[in-house]
Amino acid sequence: MPRAPSQDGQESPRRTAERILEVTLELFNRFGEPNVSTTLISAELHISPGNLYYHYPAKDELINSLFDRYERGLGELLHAADDVRDVEDAWFFLHTLFERIWAYRFLYRDLNDLLSKNRRLETHFQQVLRNKTRAIKALLDGMSRSGALHIDSRETEATATSMVVVLTYWLSYEYVRDPRHALEPESAQHALLRGAQHVLQLLVPYLEPAQRAHLIALATAYTPASGT
Amino acid sequence: MPRAPSQDGQESPRRTAERILEVTLELFNRFGEPNVSTTLISAELHISPGNLYYHYPAKDELINSLFDRYERGLGELLHAADDVRDVEDAWFFLHTLFERIWAYRFLYRDLNDLLSKNRRLETHFQQVLRNKTRAIKALLDGMSRSGALHIDSRETEATATSMVVVLTYWLSYEYVRDPRHALEPESAQHALLRGAQHVLQLLVPYLEPAQRAHLIALATAYTPASGT
Repeated sequence: MPRAPSQDGQESPRRTAERILEVTLELFNRFGEPNVSTTLISAELHISPGNLYYHYPAKDELINSLFDRYERGLGELLHAADDVRDVEDAWFFLHTLFERIWAYRFLYRDLNDLLSKNRRLETHFQQVLRNKTRAIKALLDGMSRSGALHIDSRETEATATSMVVVLTYWLSYEYVRDPRHALEPESAQHALLRGAQHVLQLLVPYLEPAQRAHLIALATAYTPASGT
Repeated sequence: MPRAPSQDGQESPRRTAERILEVTLELFNRFGEPNVSTTLISAELHISPGNLYYHYPAKDELINSLFDRYERGLGELLHAADDVRDVEDAWFFLHTLFERIWAYRFLYRDLNDLLSKNRRLETHFQQVLRNKTRAIKALLDGMSRSGALHIDSRETEATATSMVVVLTYWLSYEYVRDPRHALEPESAQHALLRGAQHVLQLLVPYLEPAQRAHLIALATAYTPASGT
């Protein structure tokens, strides 16, 4: 995103709005949206609450702006599912998807509460799930067409749904198992690897033998000693 | 649980404490724990805030008491996994498990927020996940021993984990798809059927043919027209 040039050494309003979003995302991800007030955000930014209010008159507008970015980025990424042909493509696609989810993990940490309080999220998140499901089906189709995968068409729908559930809630699962560390930056790499692996593992029984061996090799190469 | 006899036409303290928990559980399930204050609970019960406070001096004690019941009931139920031998047993076991989760669905609706605020839940929920995983592994073992299931031992662990993730987050998934209705009492039957079906569906590729046909027959018999 291009930055507006600064004027007279002062930050441009656009740059300030941008910086507010960046810091808010960081705080939401670290502490959870319910635990971050606009007062905390302005203190962290060393700006006055009035200045924050000038850019975002309510906390919901911060949430909505961040969600819009997430939704836009996700939409672009999901198109890549159409080009998945084998386990290697799928592995890369799922890792990229998990990185995107990780970058906006506050949305997933308190998803149900956010949905119950914010009408925009309530409707748009349904769209996010539909888009994810469509992308996973495209991935299954692409791998089937290329012969990497043999799946009974009656099982495609249910398998795609289970993959979306594991994809959507993997970080929550990691969080329950270790609430004090799971969502900290230093946990990212292992958490994302385990998530991508478990989503892909649902395909194992359907993979043709060489692809299956390739997936096991990938998983072994990337798995940390402690990983499950 | 036996009720203490009422004295002089007055409800016994024990009965009052019991009634407070029942009403709290209902309100938490309906509105979500973050949206239910102790003031609302006492109003709903037509008792004074002081009377509520006498029994439960803090909201966390209500949450803990409800969680203790959930944990106890779940513990008893999970032992039944040891006796699962075929798809029919597994179907019944998972339905019963989903009914228990449904009865305490407020815990799952705002799980991460509850964990971040309540030390008892933080530690005990890890135990709940471990117990669920152990039970699902026992179920896989029992079905393998009886020949209903053929699964490579290297895939058992990952399959059990995925089953636990789908089991744990199925209601959250239903909630995102339809936040205004998914957790209402009239949605229970279909939601629990879909949940049990999707958990079992993860076993389909490993089932021996007759068991596989039996699972499809069960799913067809119980699936509502709209179900996926």
